[in-house]
Amino acid sequence: MKKADVVVLGGLSGITAGISCRRHYPDKKIILIRKEGTVLIPCGIPYIYGTVGGPENNVIPDGLLESNGIELIRGEAIEVDREKKTVVMKGGEIIGYEKLVFATGSVPLVPPIPGIDKENVYPVKKEFEYLSEVHSHMNMVKDLVIIGGGFIGMEFADECRKGRNINVTVVEAMPHCLQAAMDNEYCEEAQAKLEETGVGILVNQTVEAILGKKKVTGVKLSSGKELKADMIILGIGALPNTDLAKKAGLELGFRNTIKVDRYMQTYTDPDIFACGDCAEKQSFFDGRPTGVMLASIATSEARIAGANLFSPTHQNCGAISVFSTVINGRAFGVAGLTERCANQMRAKIVIGTAEAPDTHPGGMPNSCHTKVKLIFAKDTGVIMGGSICGGKPVGEMTNVLSACIMHRMTADDIVKFQMGTHPALTSSPIMYPIVNAACKAVIPLKASA
Amino acid sequence: MKKADVVVLGGLSGITAGISCRRHYPDKKIILIRKEGTVLIPCGIPYIYGTVGGPENNVIPDGLLESNGIELIRGEAIEVDREKKTVVMKGGEIIGYEKLVFATGSVPLVPPIPGIDKENVYPVKKEFEYLSEVHSHMNMVKDLVIIGGGFIGMEFADECRKGRNINVTVVEAMPHCLQAAMDNEYCEEAQAKLEETGVGILVNQTVEAILGKKKVTGVKLSSGKELKADMIILGIGALPNTDLAKKAGLELGFRNTIKVDRYMQTYTDPDIFACGDCAEKQSFFDGRPTGVMLASIATSEARIAGANLFSPTHQNCGAISVFSTVINGRAFGVAGLTERCANQMRAKIVIGTAEAPDTHPGGMPNSCHTKVKLIFAKDTGVIMGGSICGGKPVGEMTNVLSACIMHRMTADDIVKFQMGTHPALTSSPIMYPIVNAACKAVIPLKASA
Repeated sequence: MKKADVVVLGGLSGITAGISCRRHYPDKKIILIRKEGTVLIPCGIPYIYGTVGGPENNVIPDGLLESNGIELIRGEAIEVDREKKTVVMKGGEIIGYEKLVFATGSVPLVPPIPGIDKENVYPVKKEFEYLSEVHSHMNMVKDLVIIGGGFIGMEFADECRKGRNINVTVVEAMPHCLQAAMDNEYCEEAQAKLEETGVGILVNQTVEAILGKKKVTGVKLSSGKELKADMIILGIGALPNTDLAKKAGLELGFRNTIKVDRYMQTYTDPDIFACGDCAEKQSFFDGRPTGVMLASIATSEARIAGANLFSPTHQNCGAISVFSTVINGRAFGVAGLTERCANQMRAKIVIGTAEAPDTHPGGMPNSCHTKVKLIFAKDTGVIMGGSICGGKPVGEMTNVLSACIMHRMTADDIVKFQMGTHPALTSSPIMYPIVNAACKAVIPLKASA
Repeated sequence: MKKADVVVLGGLSGITAGISCRRHYPDKKIILIRKEGTVLIPCGIPYIYGTVGGPENNVIPDGLLESNGIELIRGEAIEVDREKKTVVMKGGEIIGYEKLVFATGSVPLVPPIPGIDKENVYPVKKEFEYLSEVHSHMNMVKDLVIIGGGFIGMEFADECRKGRNINVTVVEAMPHCLQAAMDNEYCEEAQAKLEETGVGILVNQTVEAILGKKKVTGVKLSSGKELKADMIILGIGALPNTDLAKKAGLELGFRNTIKVDRYMQTYTDPDIFACGDCAEKQSFFDGRPTGVMLASIATSEARIAGANLFSPTHQNCGAISVFSTVINGRAFGVAGLTERCANQMRAKIVIGTAEAPDTHPGGMPNSCHTKVKLIFAKDTGVIMGGSICGGKPVGEMTNVLSACIMHRMTADDIVKFQMGTHPALTSSPIMYPIVNAACKAVIPLKASA
């Protein structure tokens, strides 16, 4: 029987957990088991269909495993025997472990819409061959309907028209696309940017049926209207991939994720850890379970899990939820709570907003108008979240906010923030919008104190 | 006699101090006095000579004063009478104040080199008409020598060849350009980038004499070599503009800056505050006086001073020193201490480095290879500084580091940092170099604990 000190089950966060384990435990034997021949960069998947040109250009190189001395076993783990501390492979092979990490990720949610199993209806699986098939197929498509206006749906819609003459329509059940992630004014701007490219957006509508005989020919909407479609992309969310964990008797929690503590150690078995989309997450803010699934959270958890395997020391502070996207060249980012979320919690908040070009003077080339909205707790002045839109720096500005949130900075702290500025790289020191948004919140905060 | 609750003397940080005062004290009458007709964006000055096209495109609009109800008086303040609490103007006008803010900035350092007063030798003054004159003159120049390879010198050298056929040589006294600000490997990369544009760089050399009769014709170097020059730009540093403060009897400190406490209140007079280049700065790290002058520090101090005028409440935590620059399209940023500074302090440190493309996959358009170097205190693991080079996001990545430093995050904290990632905007969640540099420092830190 093959045996390792550490066996990791899974893809992206599995690689990160393995590398973290290697850093902390240089002498341990580590095996990574995964079904997929190739691991795709998950956030890059929509870009396969436009900018990046194909799934082969969106791959995480396995050289990372080799250079960290992690053995890769390709195959499907079908059982975990916690008594014997073994993993049973589909081919019958048995692999022993001392510590086991579940990093089995998520699978796309496929809703029970009549006709969902017709040909050319594609949930977004993170599988290389499958996405290759979608890629070749897309070149023959005339009318594409995307069900779900979240990140995946919006990014697919933006990308798949690049170099192709396709009619694309996004169908979203909520009043706005991206509504689960952003406040209305940002959703509206993102929608308008996407519509500029010629993509159609239908909100407040669901798909009641998928039409066609063998192959999809259209969809019937809740409004009664029918749309032509020879391809459908499903982007309405994901479910944790936890069948194997359940079978192994691990306690599942919120939405069937594996229950873990702050050390990423499973509730059930101190020798088994979990991280990434398959693991339960608590919100950084209220500590309640949250369904957010982001590659950045997954890798952060993986670093914690890998470090804790032989001595639980490093604590997970909970999911802040930090992300960014680009729609038709305009970037959007959110860190922490939106105004909508804060209101849903019944939090008393003060909002500060500011706008500025992301260069100074604004006449520098490629200058991009940037908007920032920050949300502070009324009683304490502590930042609860922020939203930004603008150009390429939005990604890292969102990360500035994440650092501010992680360390619970107050509006007063952010007013004093010492940002570096440069004409070609940032807003001016007078206009820097993260600081100015905090400045605008300080007075209402003081008045309410 | 004209009278105001608050009189501010100065330019950029004066505007920011005025706006901050207005936010905190909506009913106060505020007057800003300055000599200059127009205030230039200080960091934009080198870009006047290339990308931006002229000083008229690099101006801070006075609309900011109007919209904040700040009265602007153009003229030179020649005396402050602290007994009578008045400012005396050159034309004889007297203006009374309750609180006074010195934001008088700095003036270029002009070294006593023989021949320094010849025609066409230009220290970089922050004056509109003067810089316009330099601009028109530069179009007729064939051989430009820049004395000083700091930011100003390097940025001028990079910019002034844009659209002009000039021979440009930078003469630097130290072994590397930018040496006061960056570690050697970053200095070397910046120099190589500048040399690619055709600019000549001479290090370890000083200018012993400026040659020519009335007008400059060349320089004599410490090596004995002579260089042809029909224009010289001086970029070797700045001195605080504190003659008026000295005359008013305010205590001066390090390098003739006005002595202020953590509230930006002068040591001498509780009704007088100072901020920006004219005010003494203490290092965030060791609390010692530091000569660093940055627009971002100046505006941060101005926000603190403006808020404290009628009730000293907001403390300055000291200068972290955060900046970024761009040389021939490559961006460089530093927040906090360099390795060189840490070694000079005899600090025991652990360094972590990482590299990654700033998109994921790296094949996304305009992807730029990014390098990060982080410095941690060996005993505590607290971050002391970081250096980055790469593309446009470097500006805001440097600000991520500033937030980490301001809140004294440890390497363990940064390992757990929840960064948002997006294919077009950031490195991948597996490769994000700020986090990975911290990961690499964690083990040596643990070993030394």
